[in-house]
Amino acid sequence: MSTLWQQRYAQRTQRMGSSAIRELLKLTAQPDIISFAGGLPAPELFPIGEFMAAAQAVLERAGREALQYGTTEGYPPLREMIVRHMARYGIVVGIDHVLITSGSQQALDLIGKVLINPGDRILTEEPTYLGALQAFTTYGAEYVTIPVDGDGLQTARLEEALRSGPKFLYVLPNFQNPSGTTLPLERRLELVALSERYGVPIIEDDPYGQLRFEGRHIQPLVTLDAEGQHCENDGRYRGNVIYLSTFSKTLAPGLRLGWVVAPTEVIRRMVLAKQGTDLHTSSFDQMVVHEAARGGFIDRHVLRIREVYRRRRDVMLGCLERAFPDPAAGVRWTRPQGGLFLWVMLPERIDAASLFDEAIREKVAFVPGAAFHPLGGGQNTMRLNFSNASEAMIEQGMTRLCRVIRRQLEALGARLPQGAAGRVVALAPAGGATARPAPTA
Amino acid sequence: MSTLWQQRYAQRTQRMGSSAIRELLKLTAQPDIISFAGGLPAPELFPIGEFMAAAQAVLERAGREALQYGTTEGYPPLREMIVRHMARYGIVVGIDHVLITSGSQQALDLIGKVLINPGDRILTEEPTYLGALQAFTTYGAEYVTIPVDGDGLQTARLEEALRSGPKFLYVLPNFQNPSGTTLPLERRLELVALSERYGVPIIEDDPYGQLRFEGRHIQPLVTLDAEGQHCENDGRYRGNVIYLSTFSKTLAPGLRLGWVVAPTEVIRRMVLAKQGTDLHTSSFDQMVVHEAARGGFIDRHVLRIREVYRRRRDVMLGCLERAFPDPAAGVRWTRPQGGLFLWVMLPERIDAASLFDEAIREKVAFVPGAAFHPLGGGQNTMRLNFSNASEAMIEQGMTRLCRVIRRQLEALGARLPQGAAGRVVALAPAGGATARPAPTA
Repeated sequence: MSTLWQQRYAQRTQRMGSSAIRELLKLTAQPDIISFAGGLPAPELFPIGEFMAAAQAVLERAGREALQYGTTEGYPPLREMIVRHMARYGIVVGIDHVLITSGSQQALDLIGKVLINPGDRILTEEPTYLGALQAFTTYGAEYVTIPVDGDGLQTARLEEALRSGPKFLYVLPNFQNPSGTTLPLERRLELVALSERYGVPIIEDDPYGQLRFEGRHIQPLVTLDAEGQHCENDGRYRGNVIYLSTFSKTLAPGLRLGWVVAPTEVIRRMVLAKQGTDLHTSSFDQMVVHEAARGGFIDRHVLRIREVYRRRRDVMLGCLERAFPDPAAGVRWTRPQGGLFLWVMLPERIDAASLFDEAIREKVAFVPGAAFHPLGGGQNTMRLNFSNASEAMIEQGMTRLCRVIRRQLEALGARLPQGAAGRVVALAPAGGATARPAPTA
Repeated sequence: MSTLWQQRYAQRTQRMGSSAIRELLKLTAQPDIISFAGGLPAPELFPIGEFMAAAQAVLERAGREALQYGTTEGYPPLREMIVRHMARYGIVVGIDHVLITSGSQQALDLIGKVLINPGDRILTEEPTYLGALQAFTTYGAEYVTIPVDGDGLQTARLEEALRSGPKFLYVLPNFQNPSGTTLPLERRLELVALSERYGVPIIEDDPYGQLRFEGRHIQPLVTLDAEGQHCENDGRYRGNVIYLSTFSKTLAPGLRLGWVVAPTEVIRRMVLAKQGTDLHTSSFDQMVVHEAARGGFIDRHVLRIREVYRRRRDVMLGCLERAFPDPAAGVRWTRPQGGLFLWVMLPERIDAASLFDEAIREKVAFVPGAAFHPLGGGQNTMRLNFSNASEAMIEQGMTRLCRVIRRQLEALGARLPQGAAGRVVALAPAGGATARPAPTA
């Protein structure tokens, strides 16, 4: 009797993300397809020369250290660099508040491992980052969601959700993946206060915070939380927030380097979990990234990325505005102030999944938005990435995509009563209280 | 009410390895201590020049690919290299049988994630690799153990354990960590046949297989299994074994690169799990290791490592033989034919943990063996690493360590009846059936 593998798998594998999106991304990898589907940075901006110099310097100066086992917590000078970076964000922490992870995805996995019991309710935005759902679901998470509007998480609807006793709240405050929205300061303050009132921790996922194209930097939740009563005289942060970020969007994603800033006791638990997970993150990559980033290079480099991505966003927005000048057509989209993605909401009866099939035939791709909705819904939404393709390719791809959308709208118009196409579900307008740009109508 | 983190942690964190061994390893990191505690390769053998050339070549030729997101399965040319390597081991598989992992430790974590339900019984050798216990315990594993003798896992005691319905058997057939023992061919054949008979899969962990100093290569379990009925005409392996190995011991551990070879359906599950765990392993590291290893370099380099480690093992064995020439003293040890570790068994009433404290005062360190026993026991055992220290340092460190052991023996001799010190618990002699060298008496 050979192994009947099907009967051997753990129950949790039944809830592991189906490969739907992966299969979809494979389709979009065909060379003649213009893809807005992935979340890839622009490879032509990768600082290859700096990485070459850094790799040489590290191996020459400290080759044995770079190739040997390292500590689970991470390479100390890199952790010190993160401490300095966080200080610019207004939070003073020590090196023992910092854990280096194999990309932010590993931080999400470790958070799931350390915090989630099967059946625990996790509060998320709707829509939210698919990779977080994959990580948390493996550990048995159930979801309670709060819809995002043009200003991100609707904090007015948060208190009721917090009363349901969630294990934690997962939120992406800056240029959210997938919606592109940003949480304004008032909402951040409200969120931090509610977290404190209910004793519910916040996971603040901030991969894109440094990629702001316009408007003013808004303090991260971890800083606002530390400004409360938690940061005591010893300089230790004892608050409610676990903050995640990454070098994937500012230097390069291929090296899989992220970090966590959290209360030291949380870091200690995560270190234990990481030890059994991969011992530590590549010593070589940590030292190379530290070498490449230091001396202010990363700051200069981020300016360049912002400028290129801002122009690409503008090209994509321009295409949408030209294609759908009439709000009555019922096509809406967000106008992100940074990051990699914008979000398109189609009339409710349009199914983005079937639109995807037609788009692939036209050689253009996106991610249908339903995948980002942990409780279902969002069939009429789509995520568009504007960081990876050149401006010319964005023009060309958007021409194709808008043609496909218009065709679907026309087919729909024949069946729908006039005016019914305009209601938007996933990103309901925030109402008059907000000072942020609402989704472009 | 701030977050009461203690009340937030998942139940599984209660079983996560305490930091006892980590704290111990921190002690041993003091510069004046000669440490046989870690499992570190010799850093002076790291091919730093080759890594420099490889990093340059990769970034020059394919910098954008090296710095961009990659596929979860791994860099295809590296997977093809593994396919060729495995073919030399006598098993023909395709690239879709291979998954690149962030070190073998990640493979163990993914196996736990994909296979273990809370309460599942896992069959292991006793003693066994601590990192595997850490990985599996997180997912709720319980253990059934089979003692190791001078020839490794006692297959004669396997059938009864298999009848208890374990989820899988975890075994290190070559130069086992921690015992240094090697499973002979007869036992491997028996093990594979029993696995087939009971439909219980085998996790074959083989980090050291290429580091054989003497004697003949023995085919891995995965090859023996594939030689049975499983390898059909399509060349697909559909067997009972998940095989793990790593570049950590042949090139460098700092880059965290390992691999899994398994039936394709198992690989697919592990890929899904890995996607939520860290998306993929560093593209840069995969390409650099592929570049450094190819063209036969790794084979030439392994010859050099074997020679150096063999001499270091001989120095360590020589010290033990000179210090304890009389078997009646009750100190026994294994004579590994390869790898990084040997195993010392002291008289039963000697506690290696208190011996450790005394050794640290004498500026020499080892790992007390109890940690490698999932069900307790082994207090009288110790693991010694011979790969990291130079021959001169081994001489010096062993002089100190043997002095400490002798002191404890003398103290014991005063309390114990004559002759009672000789019985060995953890590594009971295998009996007359074996052709392998038994533990040196």
